[in-house]
Amino acid sequence: MDSNQIPDIVVERLPLYLQTLQRLLKEGQETTSSKDLGNRIGISAAQIRKDLSHFGGFGKQGTGYSIKYLIEKLEDILNVNQVWDIALVGVGFLGHAIANFDGFQNHGFKIAYIFDNDPGKIGTKIGNHEILDSKKMKEIIKKNKIRVVMITVDAEHAQDVANHAVEAGVDAILNYAPVKLMVPESVQVQNIDPILKLQHMTYYLR
Amino acid sequence: MDSNQIPDIVVERLPLYLQTLQRLLKEGQETTSSKDLGNRIGISAAQIRKDLSHFGGFGKQGTGYSIKYLIEKLEDILNVNQVWDIALVGVGFLGHAIANFDGFQNHGFKIAYIFDNDPGKIGTKIGNHEILDSKKMKEIIKKNKIRVVMITVDAEHAQDVANHAVEAGVDAILNYAPVKLMVPESVQVQNIDPILKLQHMTYYLR
Repeated sequence: MDSNQIPDIVVERLPLYLQTLQRLLKEGQETTSSKDLGNRIGISAAQIRKDLSHFGGFGKQGTGYSIKYLIEKLEDILNVNQVWDIALVGVGFLGHAIANFDGFQNHGFKIAYIFDNDPGKIGTKIGNHEILDSKKMKEIIKKNKIRVVMITVDAEHAQDVANHAVEAGVDAILNYAPVKLMVPESVQVQNIDPILKLQHMTYYLR
Repeated sequence: MDSNQIPDIVVERLPLYLQTLQRLLKEGQETTSSKDLGNRIGISAAQIRKDLSHFGGFGKQGTGYSIKYLIEKLEDILNVNQVWDIALVGVGFLGHAIANFDGFQNHGFKIAYIFDNDPGKIGTKIGNHEILDSKKMKEIIKKNKIRVVMITVDAEHAQDVANHAVEAGVDAILNYAPVKLMVPESVQVQNIDPILKLQHMTYYLR
């Protein structure tokens, strides 16, 4: 199936379905319905059925979805039936928190390399990870065919880091710096910025 | 103007416009055009003009926008021409990083109260903030009319924290826990979850 055929807004919802199914499984549930799943997520059952129908369905009329089976299918679709090595660039408070977060592995990701340009940090460790010199980033990304980078440097340096990462062959960037990154069209970028989310909400507070 | 008239997808873009304008101002620019702004954000000039026209425009044909003026207007619209006190609940690695982040103040927010339920943490300090007992959260939120809460506890406890916050009068929640919160319709919720963003991108990686 050509991935270009699926609207991105549908793709965006799939990880949420996967997350919710994993939670249901953890709670001991074995099957679910699009209605049950929809109630958990705040999306209509019709929307869920329509989204999943892009990939061929997976439910049986009347018996609903096998949670384990649907999890497997969604992991295949999202390419997280494997573990992606991630390079994390920037070890401030946030980079430190992310490096210590233990929730990536079970969801298809592993922080594999950590970089910073501060001589006081290079060579020190966070957990099992030695902080590496940013100067070596390009070489290490290339050599290890890293495709996913997290940028947790400040706004002023984020574009530089992105440029180097893209030159090294990265094609997915999770950007925590409060700046819009310019990258080639073939490179995925997602942004995480609490201030944008907070201001979105305060619009509605009178 | 009735805020219900503006599509939420437009509201969502306004903080991004504000952020970009603030960056332009910092770089010494005094005026901008919808084309210039659009190039910076990766949105068409027509879309920006259309979004801003919901609020009456603000640009003059041919001379573009005064950046300072547009920043003021957007701050008014987003209600960030004031500083919102935030209660942060949960001091793990992430809560700690957020408590130490100094970028909120200039954008309309201040971490004012920090809560945790760990006796080993309660009473200790992060910067100037004493970590308070979660048991006192409801009372303190109520007393100080806090309307915005950040939840950085784990998935299992997030809904409980949200319930208490809502009962105390909070009407905006920024949720970092990987779980969908159930709240009354009058309460705003925004979620931040790096795993959902990463899986969204790996879909496109073949």
